[in-house]
Amino acid sequence: MAKVYNFSAGPAVLPHAVLAEAQSELLDWHGSGMSVMEMSHRGKEFMQIVHEAEQDLRSLLHIPNNYKVLFLQGGASLQFAMLPLNLLGDKKSVDIVDTGHWSKLAIKEARRYSAVNVVASSEDRHYLYVPAEDTWQRDPNAAYLHYTSNETIGGLQFPFTPSSLPGVPLVCDMSSDFLSREIDVTQFGLIYAGAQKNIGPSGLTVVIVREDLLGLAQPDTPTMLNYQVHADADSMYNTPGTYPIYIAGLVFKWLKEQGGVNAMAARNAEKAGLLYHAIDSSNGFYTCPVDPEFRSKMNIVFRLKDESLEETFLSEAKKNGLVQLKGHRALGGMRASIYNAMPIEGVKALVHFMQEFARQHS
Amino acid sequence: MAKVYNFSAGPAVLPHAVLAEAQSELLDWHGSGMSVMEMSHRGKEFMQIVHEAEQDLRSLLHIPNNYKVLFLQGGASLQFAMLPLNLLGDKKSVDIVDTGHWSKLAIKEARRYSAVNVVASSEDRHYLYVPAEDTWQRDPNAAYLHYTSNETIGGLQFPFTPSSLPGVPLVCDMSSDFLSREIDVTQFGLIYAGAQKNIGPSGLTVVIVREDLLGLAQPDTPTMLNYQVHADADSMYNTPGTYPIYIAGLVFKWLKEQGGVNAMAARNAEKAGLLYHAIDSSNGFYTCPVDPEFRSKMNIVFRLKDESLEETFLSEAKKNGLVQLKGHRALGGMRASIYNAMPIEGVKALVHFMQEFARQHS
Repeated sequence: MAKVYNFSAGPAVLPHAVLAEAQSELLDWHGSGMSVMEMSHRGKEFMQIVHEAEQDLRSLLHIPNNYKVLFLQGGASLQFAMLPLNLLGDKKSVDIVDTGHWSKLAIKEARRYSAVNVVASSEDRHYLYVPAEDTWQRDPNAAYLHYTSNETIGGLQFPFTPSSLPGVPLVCDMSSDFLSREIDVTQFGLIYAGAQKNIGPSGLTVVIVREDLLGLAQPDTPTMLNYQVHADADSMYNTPGTYPIYIAGLVFKWLKEQGGVNAMAARNAEKAGLLYHAIDSSNGFYTCPVDPEFRSKMNIVFRLKDESLEETFLSEAKKNGLVQLKGHRALGGMRASIYNAMPIEGVKALVHFMQEFARQHS
Repeated sequence: MAKVYNFSAGPAVLPHAVLAEAQSELLDWHGSGMSVMEMSHRGKEFMQIVHEAEQDLRSLLHIPNNYKVLFLQGGASLQFAMLPLNLLGDKKSVDIVDTGHWSKLAIKEARRYSAVNVVASSEDRHYLYVPAEDTWQRDPNAAYLHYTSNETIGGLQFPFTPSSLPGVPLVCDMSSDFLSREIDVTQFGLIYAGAQKNIGPSGLTVVIVREDLLGLAQPDTPTMLNYQVHADADSMYNTPGTYPIYIAGLVFKWLKEQGGVNAMAARNAEKAGLLYHAIDSSNGFYTCPVDPEFRSKMNIVFRLKDESLEETFLSEAKKNGLVQLKGHRALGGMRASIYNAMPIEGVKALVHFMQEFARQHS
């Protein structure tokens, strides 16, 4: 097959320049005679790789010195347990905003270890909006306030960073919009993100945690689920997933070359704008159900007015080199994930195809 | 640097043919137009990769149908918590054999969730032997009996598979000798292995578990630490580390081409034999402290009679393309890890270097 544009929600497209570099040095990293996959995680070569990855990430997000950066495994799903186990301390309850599939899973797992106060939910309208902050029923004694900045399945994104009450750290699952726009890390107690959308290959979870939140783990917390253990060991308590860290490091360097997070945010806005415009100007052939102000710039969900055309749409798209456009099985319809690494040419090709397809089937 | 022989204990050398194949298809797997790193874990391409990896592993080890194969994350260190959490059931205690660094960590973590009966320990003689099985103080009511078939740091390997009492499943940390010799899977309740020695890159843990041991997890077990959850979802409960699974699959195919596990065992015996012979015939210039019958065929530890020569040995070895020979910081001395992927030429080059070095410095 010729070049394709890959709209997978994750694992997802990676920058071509990053993959080309990985390919060129796969057998021999920087004259070491070894593949990165073959290097001891405690050797000086890999220590350099992980150090540079952390420094580049710190530079991209202006991460202050009182935050630790951890390179972990297990994805957001493991974080759902690690958060209450590590941050509950002597509090009794945690606050969670419910905006869709992933927040629901975060709530379900947190309930195994803590009371959960759902501060707000948009389930009443099928998660097509973010509840207005002034309606949230917050608990001033909550151990933390958790939200999911971008719901990958629903295509819903927070256009704002919530405020947090004094003494209630803000915790964010940023898996699917990490590094896609500027954030002020100091507003957060903890940020986490599975790598397989905007960071690199799967098998890596990045956690950014304010140091004063370490050391509060429940006594039964498995050692490998204790943030403090990983922080004390600079993510080398045991062997980390070294190759995903290496690729993430190449992505961070690529992002810096592209002008950093602000430059990506501008491109992401442009890409999402093109797609939503194509949907909204299709005279109802395509529709996006999400309320306009909360539409994700990462995962664009849309439906065809005539659902019986969906299979034809997907197979015709594939013939045009546009792949992985099927919506999540929980929701149906279509989804185009357009993370940082999706070039604008890919979005333009998709828009062109959608317009042609609508013309042919209207 | 020219070609090197990499004796790292893990992450470790991978077969050159595997890395070359990974390199050739890094940008485009089998005409899909995508890198494996970019594929949805639920797409048909990756499902094929993971299915073939499992089938090839089943074929290599003759894994019966009543055993599940799980591809997990977190390494052996996470298994140390998962084992008692999943297998204790309504029992009160677990049996563990203490043969060195890794069994000690397994004991320490298990004690967080269960009473631990150390059935035998070779700590009295610095873990230089495996205690004779007829001296083990077994508990017939133990939830399981755990041992570490190869102690990577100490260079100690079980030359036998322990027997287990009726109703007490045998559990083995096979991280550093998995696939290096034939085993009878039916003797085990559960086998686990971190990938970064004999399987592939780090970030993957293989678990082989008998189905009747599933479903016994303690109520507080984090969802991601529950074997049943991963078994029910065929290791796709959440996004696994896809690239390490792909590389492991290539390694399994390579092993089949090499003649399978028995062929590797013969080569491994030959390689280890060459090295131990070089040590034992050095008139004391090199010594291996481990009792001969328990010496590992994977990790050959040795010391120089004159410790002040160690740095010179390492730097001269590196000049000769022989790298990562430094022993674990907990033990000092030297360690040559010669997993399946280390070619016999690498061992011969090391033996030649050791003999020359001894001649020059005797």
